[in-house]
Amino acid sequence: MTYCVGLKLDRGLVFAADTRTNAGVDNVATFKKLHTWEKADDRVLVLMSAGNLAVTQAVVSLLSEHIVQAGDGKPTLMTVDTMFQAARLVGSAVREVHQIDGEALAASADSFMVTLILGGQIKGEAPRLFQIYAAGNFIEVSEDTPFLQIGEHKYGKPILDRVTRRDMRLGEAAKMVLLSFDSTLRSNLSVGMPIDLFLYNTDSFSSERQRRIEQDDPYFQKLSGAWSEKLRQAFADIEEFDV
Amino acid sequence: MTYCVGLKLDRGLVFAADTRTNAGVDNVATFKKLHTWEKADDRVLVLMSAGNLAVTQAVVSLLSEHIVQAGDGKPTLMTVDTMFQAARLVGSAVREVHQIDGEALAASADSFMVTLILGGQIKGEAPRLFQIYAAGNFIEVSEDTPFLQIGEHKYGKPILDRVTRRDMRLGEAAKMVLLSFDSTLRSNLSVGMPIDLFLYNTDSFSSERQRRIEQDDPYFQKLSGAWSEKLRQAFADIEEFDV
Repeated sequence: MTYCVGLKLDRGLVFAADTRTNAGVDNVATFKKLHTWEKADDRVLVLMSAGNLAVTQAVVSLLSEHIVQAGDGKPTLMTVDTMFQAARLVGSAVREVHQIDGEALAASADSFMVTLILGGQIKGEAPRLFQIYAAGNFIEVSEDTPFLQIGEHKYGKPILDRVTRRDMRLGEAAKMVLLSFDSTLRSNLSVGMPIDLFLYNTDSFSSERQRRIEQDDPYFQKLSGAWSEKLRQAFADIEEFDV
Repeated sequence: MTYCVGLKLDRGLVFAADTRTNAGVDNVATFKKLHTWEKADDRVLVLMSAGNLAVTQAVVSLLSEHIVQAGDGKPTLMTVDTMFQAARLVGSAVREVHQIDGEALAASADSFMVTLILGGQIKGEAPRLFQIYAAGNFIEVSEDTPFLQIGEHKYGKPILDRVTRRDMRLGEAAKMVLLSFDSTLRSNLSVGMPIDLFLYNTDSFSSERQRRIEQDDPYFQKLSGAWSEKLRQAFADIEEFDV
C-alpha cells in the first residue's frame, strides 16, 4: 500500500508521500514515490505514485528517458507549455507501460494498478494539480476540494475534510498533512515512514522546500504526541452521553 | 454500506449501528441493523449486521423463528447456556442461509456477504462480544483490542484507537462511538442517520439504556459541532511545520 496527498492552495502546492512498498507483510521495503523535475526559473513538476511498483517505476523511467532522448523533437515534461500537456504526457506513459506489460500482468493474475498525482507550475500558468488513472486519463483538482489522495486514503481523510482551507499557509498545510499521515500510519502497517514532503510556493520555481521526515524526526514526534494529547483533552472536555 | 461498532468494557457493553441500506446511491432506505433478544433477569443478546440485506435479514429471521418453534427441543438464543453457544447458533444460521441462497446468489453474480457482531450476557457468565463471519466461524474480542467494527470501519477507527480504555464509563464510550460515527458519516454517504445505540451495564440484564439518535438529536448536533471546533482549536495550537 501507499499513501500520498497533494494540495493546491492559494499560496502554492503541498505534496507528501510515504515510502513503504510491500509484497505481503513479510516483504517490506523503502522506495521513493515522490519524483521531481525542474528547470531553473521555468518549471517545477512533482509526480507521486501508488500501485504496482514495477508499473509506477516504468512510468517514471519512461518519462525521464523521453527527456534524455528529446532530440527527436517529441514533447517532454521539460518542453511542454502547460501542466495540462504534462498530465497528458504522464497519461501517455501509463498507456505505453500498459501496452508493454498489461497482457503479461493479466496473464499472471497480477493487475495493472497505478494511480498518480502530478502537480507543479510551468512559467506562464498558475500552479496546477492532477490525478492520473491507470487508463491514462486524468482529473484536475477543483476549487471545492483542493486536495487529492491516492493509496490508503480513508484513515487520513477526516482531518483533511475538517481542516483544509485554500488560504492556509503552506507550513500550516504541512502540519495538517503530517497529522493525516500520523492517523494513517497508526492504522495501516503497509504505509510507513519516512515521509517525503515538498512545499512549493507559487512563482518560486524552486524545489528547495523539501525534506524527508524520518521515524525519529523531532518535529514529527512532537506533533504526533501533542495531537494525541490534545485529542484526548478535547474528548474529555465534551459533555458525556446519557440515555 | 453500513457501520456498526461493539465495545466490551469493564462496566459492560456498548453497541451502535447506523440504519442506511443502499443498492446504489440512487436507492437508499432505512433498516434496523441492531436486533435484541432478552429474558428478564436471565439474558440480553444484541446482534448487529453488515452485508447483503437479504442475507442478514434471513439470518435474524431464522434465529427468531427457531425461538418460536423451540418445541422441538433444539437449542435457541433463549435457551443456550453461554454466549459461546449463542455465537455458534448465529454461525449455524449463517450457514443455513448460505445453503439456501448461496448458489443462486453466486449464479447471479451477487455475493454472499454478511458480517455480524454478537454481544450480551447470559446469567452465570460475564458479558461477551463476538464477530461472526460469512463462513459461520467467529472470533471473540480480546483484552488488547476491546472493540469490533463491521462495515465501513476505516474513517471512524482513528478515534477508537486513540481513546478507547477498558475502564471507560459507558456514557464516555457512547460519546466516543458517536464521534466515530460522526467522522464516518461525513466521509461515506452510504452510512446514514439515525444511529441505534445500546448501552448494557454488566449484570443488569436490562435493555432499557437504548436510544435511536435521529439527525436532529440535540446531543449529537452539539457533540459534532463541539468536536469540529475543538479539533480546529487543537490543530491551531500546534506549532507549524517549517522546512
